[in-house]
Amino acid sequence: MPEIHLVRRNALRELLHEADVDALLVTDLLNIRYLTGFTGSNAALLLHAGSDKETVFCTDGRYATQSAGEVPDLERVLDRDSARALLSRADEQGASYRRTGFESHHVSVEDYEAFSALAGGIELRRAPGLVERLRLVKDATEIESLRMACAAADRALADLLEHGGIRPGRTEREVARDLETRMLDYGSSGPSFDSIVAAGANSAIPHHRPTGKVLAAGEFVKLDFGATVDGYHSDMTRTVVLGRPVDWQREVYELVYRAQAAGRAAVLPGSEVVEVDKAARQVIEQGGHGDEFSHGLGHGVGLQIHEAPRLARNGAGTLSVGMTVTVEPGVYIAGRGGVRIEDTLVVRDSTAELLTLSSKELVVV
Amino acid sequence: MPEIHLVRRNALRELLHEADVDALLVTDLLNIRYLTGFTGSNAALLLHAGSDKETVFCTDGRYATQSAGEVPDLERVLDRDSARALLSRADEQGASYRRTGFESHHVSVEDYEAFSALAGGIELRRAPGLVERLRLVKDATEIESLRMACAAADRALADLLEHGGIRPGRTEREVARDLETRMLDYGSSGPSFDSIVAAGANSAIPHHRPTGKVLAAGEFVKLDFGATVDGYHSDMTRTVVLGRPVDWQREVYELVYRAQAAGRAAVLPGSEVVEVDKAARQVIEQGGHGDEFSHGLGHGVGLQIHEAPRLARNGAGTLSVGMTVTVEPGVYIAGRGGVRIEDTLVVRDSTAELLTLSSKELVVV
Repeated sequence: MPEIHLVRRNALRELLHEADVDALLVTDLLNIRYLTGFTGSNAALLLHAGSDKETVFCTDGRYATQSAGEVPDLERVLDRDSARALLSRADEQGASYRRTGFESHHVSVEDYEAFSALAGGIELRRAPGLVERLRLVKDATEIESLRMACAAADRALADLLEHGGIRPGRTEREVARDLETRMLDYGSSGPSFDSIVAAGANSAIPHHRPTGKVLAAGEFVKLDFGATVDGYHSDMTRTVVLGRPVDWQREVYELVYRAQAAGRAAVLPGSEVVEVDKAARQVIEQGGHGDEFSHGLGHGVGLQIHEAPRLARNGAGTLSVGMTVTVEPGVYIAGRGGVRIEDTLVVRDSTAELLTLSSKELVVV
Repeated sequence: MPEIHLVRRNALRELLHEADVDALLVTDLLNIRYLTGFTGSNAALLLHAGSDKETVFCTDGRYATQSAGEVPDLERVLDRDSARALLSRADEQGASYRRTGFESHHVSVEDYEAFSALAGGIELRRAPGLVERLRLVKDATEIESLRMACAAADRALADLLEHGGIRPGRTEREVARDLETRMLDYGSSGPSFDSIVAAGANSAIPHHRPTGKVLAAGEFVKLDFGATVDGYHSDMTRTVVLGRPVDWQREVYELVYRAQAAGRAAVLPGSEVVEVDKAARQVIEQGGHGDEFSHGLGHGVGLQIHEAPRLARNGAGTLSVGMTVTVEPGVYIAGRGGVRIEDTLVVRDSTAELLTLSSKELVVV
């Protein structure tokens, strides 16, 4: 789908004019993927503010065939030192690359030194975060990939529950692996991060890693997992209970459930991210568990599992149509157990659309 | 195993004295893992050249419990902006951190600006590659992890072959997934990189990704894959043939086999990396396929799948006891097929020890 990449490159060109540079040397691989479709592990892109005619893509010999297929619409150069090869070339071309921006939020101090030595007559300008500004608002192609990733996770969880995959006697690790295998069945190219399956007291650890712990009757089991489709990540958490829930479990679940609904309701264009966090957080604080909600409410999600914006007390900025974010409040009672409920959503004109569709009612297995 | 991390920190202290700094701000997560055992996704370490008493580790609240278990032997601070928190603290402590090194090969130009603004009375010094210098030579703990990772891959391949997992009618993707699942059975926490399963003409693409292509009789199937154990990566390639090999297949296989043996034989302490590359490459050149061996001979492997040293025509340096490297020549005949044979080895006193033990005879399935 080269067209969408051209649309993105042209959108970036507007930012280059604003930033007053003739070209941008893109070295971050996710930004390169976003702008070209290339999925290999070594590349650089010298994107000219004028047009694709003066824009050059570089990768190494291992990716000669793959890049011809993925990036058919740009001039391609093969060189192992891709960024340096493009800089040398820019210097030779002279005037049309006189002021070349670079991704100073990704390029290391040492690489910058090396770039400077190669730049010759080119003035290298710091140009941080330009592609990320575009990536903040997802286009229809991206939302479709995220939708498929979320659907793979939804289906895998439904299958797992239907087949009794979450039951006393299984280990956290077995459940995690079962879930991940089922996501592969539904089109995931791999887990979007290390799956969290946390039973009993472990569910009170926000970022617990699955262990050999055996699930036991009466416990909460918290599952935080996601699928990857076309490089886009889904992110969802559900907490189930093994057998009839007791009072404290019902209370905590109910509280997190209400907090999550309040958070989702606040996800609207123009909402301050700190206000979205607050909408959910105050429900938990009023329920007397404020100290046990120890992390931010959510984060942007896309080509990275964690990206801007950050929905948190110390976050900054407002939401816009097309942003995709998670809403994931939790209450963690040390030594007993915890609950987190998380969805991935996309900000629409007057609402937030759920991409993760699994039920959020307390599931008793 | 905190002791091994202390041994590594003390080895780093010697390099800090050489580099003439009072402390090093370590921000690369793999370097932090190497020095402390921490496996989370956010951390910084301010390692004092004097001792662990003045050394501080920082992560965020999500990892409070995990870091207490993984890093019991260092003072721990919880802060989301871990590097900045440690820098501010160093500035407050004053004299004993006056000259603080930072990982200028990892820290971005923008982060360096932010660090500088926080550094106050501290002089920030570029100190690239210090931990990587240590990581170049693996200690016994690391070699043991690599050995287990290689064993998981060996066993998975043996199982796959024994159960007829590589056969006409299956797709490349099915074979890759089968292999990856079997590695999990043998203790891998996940593939050490995107597995390559490439059949027929696809085997001539060095870095092919598994597709829906159906394996057919008479084809080469090239499998390049690895397991991860304790964060350490194995890397192995085998090429099998589906049914009786024809002449060109035998010839190419035999040539790559001899080149790989020659490359392995050259892996000795004191060998120049360019000479190791040459030892294998000249076999292929003499066989008339030099132009079809389009990549370097191998690379270091450890906490990263690709790390120093690089065994290639334009590599630099010599091998030392304890380095772990791959030897992976290949011949790729466009449109027909290709062969690569790859092992992971550790450099010993007077030989190279194989960590990947799968047979390299041409397997006919």
